[in-house]
Amino acid sequence: MKLCRYGEPGAEKPGLIDHNGDLRDLSAEIADISHEALSRKSLEILSKLDAMELPKVQGPVRYGPCVADTGKFMCIGLNYSDHAAETGADIPEHPILFMKANSAIVGPNDAVVMPRGSTHTDWEVELGVVIGERCKYVSEDDALDYVAGYCVINDVSERHFQTKLTGQWTKGKSCDTFGPIGPWLVTADEVGDPQKLSMWLDVNGERMQTGNTETMIFSVAQCISHLSQMFTLHPGDVISTGTPPGVGMGMKPEPRYLKAGDVMELEIEGLGRQRQVVQADD
Amino acid sequence: MKLCRYGEPGAEKPGLIDHNGDLRDLSAEIADISHEALSRKSLEILSKLDAMELPKVQGPVRYGPCVADTGKFMCIGLNYSDHAAETGADIPEHPILFMKANSAIVGPNDAVVMPRGSTHTDWEVELGVVIGERCKYVSEDDALDYVAGYCVINDVSERHFQTKLTGQWTKGKSCDTFGPIGPWLVTADEVGDPQKLSMWLDVNGERMQTGNTETMIFSVAQCISHLSQMFTLHPGDVISTGTPPGVGMGMKPEPRYLKAGDVMELEIEGLGRQRQVVQADD
Repeated sequence: MKLCRYGEPGAEKPGLIDHNGDLRDLSAEIADISHEALSRKSLEILSKLDAMELPKVQGPVRYGPCVADTGKFMCIGLNYSDHAAETGADIPEHPILFMKANSAIVGPNDAVVMPRGSTHTDWEVELGVVIGERCKYVSEDDALDYVAGYCVINDVSERHFQTKLTGQWTKGKSCDTFGPIGPWLVTADEVGDPQKLSMWLDVNGERMQTGNTETMIFSVAQCISHLSQMFTLHPGDVISTGTPPGVGMGMKPEPRYLKAGDVMELEIEGLGRQRQVVQADD
Repeated sequence: MKLCRYGEPGAEKPGLIDHNGDLRDLSAEIADISHEALSRKSLEILSKLDAMELPKVQGPVRYGPCVADTGKFMCIGLNYSDHAAETGADIPEHPILFMKANSAIVGPNDAVVMPRGSTHTDWEVELGVVIGERCKYVSEDDALDYVAGYCVINDVSERHFQTKLTGQWTKGKSCDTFGPIGPWLVTADEVGDPQKLSMWLDVNGERMQTGNTETMIFSVAQCISHLSQMFTLHPGDVISTGTPPGVGMGMKPEPRYLKAGDVMELEIEGLGRQRQVVQADD
């Protein structure tokens, strides 16, 4: 099942993509793609609906972030062995966690706005994991039972803010619009094995990142289990699981950063595609 | 004005402390201490109420966190010159930002539960700043205009999780119950100058921390201005502004950490007192 949210920012409605690729309105079934609507029971009820009987949404729409009311927007750093090599970093012993402000979340095709004074804005295609059920102290074996589904995330990052403004990566990760999520939340049953998904990211049509979740250092299950040893994961919480090689910071001979007017396009196998135009905030 | 939230977890009502120290019910006036209720306009309307006319709440109550629906729970690290000296760290060039999970927030007198495997849980009394109005790119001169009020925060920290589980402090700061907030949100007009507040923290009746916000490296206004250069601050966002000397990690000749049954008490001048019993999560 491909769930989504569509409409103007802050006024999105829940929707579903039918097997023809058409958007159907889910408003009569659930209030939003959030909280209890992400539970196993709720997803099972939704999966039994006849999508073709739901109201078809006409015309072009804006897609919002595919999940609402995200409490924790967690990110795993340096989680691809090939990306860790690119940055010159050691392979971490445990998943590196940092938080992205949930106020950074936007729709998959919304503009990415570089904050004033920003000169080092970079891209990162990542597999997003949306928690469906509350969990704590879960084992790796059980961890995927708590996943509602998966989505594409661009973990946009201001490298100067991230590394030069005194400690902790959060500053460079949390700028407004730096968290495009969507277009769809694809339910776990439809995705199957999350460790076999290819992904790519282009800037202005030029391929920058190519990767596959099979080179993750810590699997989705390992990340969930590790985080749940420290705190409860709640429905709607999102884990962005790290990026494969090809970020601008790692370019040779010179790093390359985004400028106003640049276009990022990114896709993960089965999870849909995002497209963002970069703007400067003058 | 001293605003608060009382009742069982997840079902708190808004309240106000009258000039006799009695709790009054604000339910008929505002839905909660959150969002628009924190705006200048809303606080001005509340300030004109005759508190003695509001329903008096009888009997002992549980206080919840004094603000609801916090999006970003931001913390400033190493922000007291005397605490930075104690930890052996250099004075930072900019405010150090890390995020605490908003799922860590609890009431001021709720139990603090050490997660399984935790052996290095520590205390940190801190001045909390509650944002009342949306703001971005604000100057230091204007920054305090966006503050609804101030509160006491215990930035409970697991030092092993914070420093030994691979990078970024968030892990040790975000455990469930590690963010007691309250008892009151004291409005900015009543607090006056936030840089002249004394504070202390006791463990089992023994004084551990003594400090005053006058030794902050970055003032409240500087912190707000700096953060707002990177992202929008929203009503209900909380900034915990760092801790003065006397944390367990800095004890000589040996660090000292919490154990089950320990009692933390902490207070900031004019902002009320917290009391937490430490529990182990077996």
